[in-house]
Amino acid sequence: MSFDITRNYAEEIRLLVEQKNDPEIKSLLQDLHPADIAEILAALELETAMYIYLLLDPEMASDVLVEIPEEERNKLLNALAPDVIARQYIEYMDSDDAADILGSLDEEVKLSVLNEIEDMEVAGDIVDLLEYDEDTAGGIMAKELVTVNENWTVATCLKEISRQAEDVDDIYYVYVVDDSNKLKGILSFKKLLLNNTNTRISNLYNPDVISVGTDTPQEEVARMMEKYDLVAIPVLDEIGRLKGRITFDDVIDVMREEAERDYQMVSGIVGDVVPGDKVWTLTRARFPWLLIGLTGGILGARVIGANEEALRVVPAMAFFIPLIAAMAGNVGVQSSSIVVQSIASGVRDFESTGRKLLKEFAVALIIGLAFAGLIFGYNFFFSDSIHLTWAVSISLLIVILFASVFGTVIPLVLNRLKIDPALATGPFITTMNDILGLTIYLLISKFFFDIL
Amino acid sequence: MSFDITRNYAEEIRLLVEQKNDPEIKSLLQDLHPADIAEILAALELETAMYIYLLLDPEMASDVLVEIPEEERNKLLNALAPDVIARQYIEYMDSDDAADILGSLDEEVKLSVLNEIEDMEVAGDIVDLLEYDEDTAGGIMAKELVTVNENWTVATCLKEISRQAEDVDDIYYVYVVDDSNKLKGILSFKKLLLNNTNTRISNLYNPDVISVGTDTPQEEVARMMEKYDLVAIPVLDEIGRLKGRITFDDVIDVMREEAERDYQMVSGIVGDVVPGDKVWTLTRARFPWLLIGLTGGILGARVIGANEEALRVVPAMAFFIPLIAAMAGNVGVQSSSIVVQSIASGVRDFESTGRKLLKEFAVALIIGLAFAGLIFGYNFFFSDSIHLTWAVSISLLIVILFASVFGTVIPLVLNRLKIDPALATGPFITTMNDILGLTIYLLISKFFFDIL
Repeated sequence: MSFDITRNYAEEIRLLVEQKNDPEIKSLLQDLHPADIAEILAALELETAMYIYLLLDPEMASDVLVEIPEEERNKLLNALAPDVIARQYIEYMDSDDAADILGSLDEEVKLSVLNEIEDMEVAGDIVDLLEYDEDTAGGIMAKELVTVNENWTVATCLKEISRQAEDVDDIYYVYVVDDSNKLKGILSFKKLLLNNTNTRISNLYNPDVISVGTDTPQEEVARMMEKYDLVAIPVLDEIGRLKGRITFDDVIDVMREEAERDYQMVSGIVGDVVPGDKVWTLTRARFPWLLIGLTGGILGARVIGANEEALRVVPAMAFFIPLIAAMAGNVGVQSSSIVVQSIASGVRDFESTGRKLLKEFAVALIIGLAFAGLIFGYNFFFSDSIHLTWAVSISLLIVILFASVFGTVIPLVLNRLKIDPALATGPFITTMNDILGLTIYLLISKFFFDIL
Repeated sequence: MSFDITRNYAEEIRLLVEQKNDPEIKSLLQDLHPADIAEILAALELETAMYIYLLLDPEMASDVLVEIPEEERNKLLNALAPDVIARQYIEYMDSDDAADILGSLDEEVKLSVLNEIEDMEVAGDIVDLLEYDEDTAGGIMAKELVTVNENWTVATCLKEISRQAEDVDDIYYVYVVDDSNKLKGILSFKKLLLNNTNTRISNLYNPDVISVGTDTPQEEVARMMEKYDLVAIPVLDEIGRLKGRITFDDVIDVMREEAERDYQMVSGIVGDVVPGDKVWTLTRARFPWLLIGLTGGILGARVIGANEEALRVVPAMAFFIPLIAAMAGNVGVQSSSIVVQSIASGVRDFESTGRKLLKEFAVALIIGLAFAGLIFGYNFFFSDSIHLTWAVSISLLIVILFASVFGTVIPLVLNRLKIDPALATGPFITTMNDILGLTIYLLISKFFFDIL
């Protein structure tokens, strides 16, 4: 049922495809989970992947399709006829997966596939879902859910649920609505099972239900479901009518994406890349932040260049340039990432921004004094210039104070401006603090060496 | 039912506590979710938090307790009598939450609470769970689950489920076992509802069930549940007997922790800190990596110091020190974080390590040539030394090549050695590459200026 990690399926299957040994391929795939087959297909060349894909029965094929990463999936779909996509794969999927897949296709292909869908209800659901912004609750919700009317009895409910359940893979909760489809509350299976069959639903359901609107940002949905441990959350329109539901697996994807984006930002990568990607994709993902680094380096060169004469007199001033730059960069990244991570976790702390800054300043002061002290000690014993000893320590203290205040303020400001605060982390803050650190250091050094 | 984010509950409640206005406090808390109450309590001083906590009814109090962060929770528990903790809170919890909470207490307190638990079955479950390593499936599973025997009929099942369901909050799946409690398969509610009441379970259940062992690492459990979209996963002992189950909410916590740990590592922070933490906690979390940075800076100072005479002759050599160091650091962090993230995502790519390295080298060569070219262009126009122009460009190329190969190899090696590969990211790789970059740059510069 699931992957044996020590086996190289990709290699094995490549061989079987060469031999056109269909029965063997089918029996191999039969024991695998759709997610595993998707991983194998994504690792194969398009032609081999396609050969295998066409051997799958429609239900399995549609489950696999959902799991293949977008890039490889679209290559596969572009090689298939619209009517095959529509009738063999899309019609077997949950509406949210179908909308995701169609939404990622070119407009033209999307329309021709939509027009080939025979079940008008399925097509309608997909078109409805495609209306929503893909980063909102509406964009990730599915239309498949089980609803019961508040006026029914438990017996009617159970009968109705059996009927609706055929279309819904996992039920989790039963949603209770009124005659105009407004959400009134939720009902667990447990409640249904533990109560008499002629009890009315209106006496059973729980009206305290946490819901989101169709336009709630997906990150907010994820945070709510995580915080309240919800396996599914209902999505309502502006007047409280039940439009769909979002399940935990969609939200895990959102969380994973968000965490990866923040991680990429702090490590200076643009977009979601893995070592398996093409050389060109990998290069492109790394270029932008390195360009910022280069620009920073050139500015740094100019700052030092402006002090060429001072350096000729006291070359020792150059010794601690990397130390100052590195400490400024590290402190800045630490400060900004603490802020970014706390924003991302969504935990409210009731602490004012002013108090946060004051605290950050206190932390920076302790760290600054400690490291200024350490480097003073080192230079006191190992350097023969007392001027340099003082200059390095005092610069380090000031640089650490500046770097941490900037590191804290910038993401807070970005967040206030509704810009992703993670932009402030990584190479950006490092580069800015590098230059600032250099300027402060050279100025203070010249002061101590009396060559200002 | 859930938090109104624009209200400052902490302030409001502090006031009500001062006035000892219990009815008002109770009515305010009544409308809130346990997770929200926990957030408010965590933000209050211990005394105020305790006052409010004691106003909650036992069921709500135990739900809230589970949600309070460990540090604040233990403060609260240390102020309560063991018999109150045991009988008013622990006995109302799921076994996994109870074990978590007890496991985080001091040995002495833990034992006295355990001995005050009156229900021996509850106490036994908790003691069993405490045996497992807290980072494994056994350490995060709960004992509460619904099992049915493969030989029963649907009717017997439904009756038995109603009985067992009282102890289990969310059922999700019904586990089918044989007479010796070995897991045979799973059954969905849907299957139970859609079938005739005298059908035997053995004809209905799905034997293709994905499970984990009690000693499976929690990160592996999380990756499996994420990949296969599982809302719950059964946990088996070595001989296949069903010992417990892990639900999606536990796994979301594991994922969140793992992502945060990697993020902290790459940004040079030790441990899970938020801006709301104490100044001392924040300082301690930032000290270790900064010490590495300082050591690196001192080594850098020595490398440059060894070239003091060269610098006196050509101070311009110092101009590009920050650029080389910054580029080396950024490239190294990029490379290592791509590897770390791909390991963390758990997606298998069937690509050999050799091929990955070759690709990384190709990427580094493109990036290196591009940036060497850019800086050559800059220096060609803006610098008056052709020696410096060549030295900077060639050093940059070599440094980028080294930095990316190291950045890729080190996390791969750590992972092979079963050490967390994320250790290689952040300040560690930056510092190492800084020094390496400096050494290469100064050597090449001296060669071009003919002062080697």
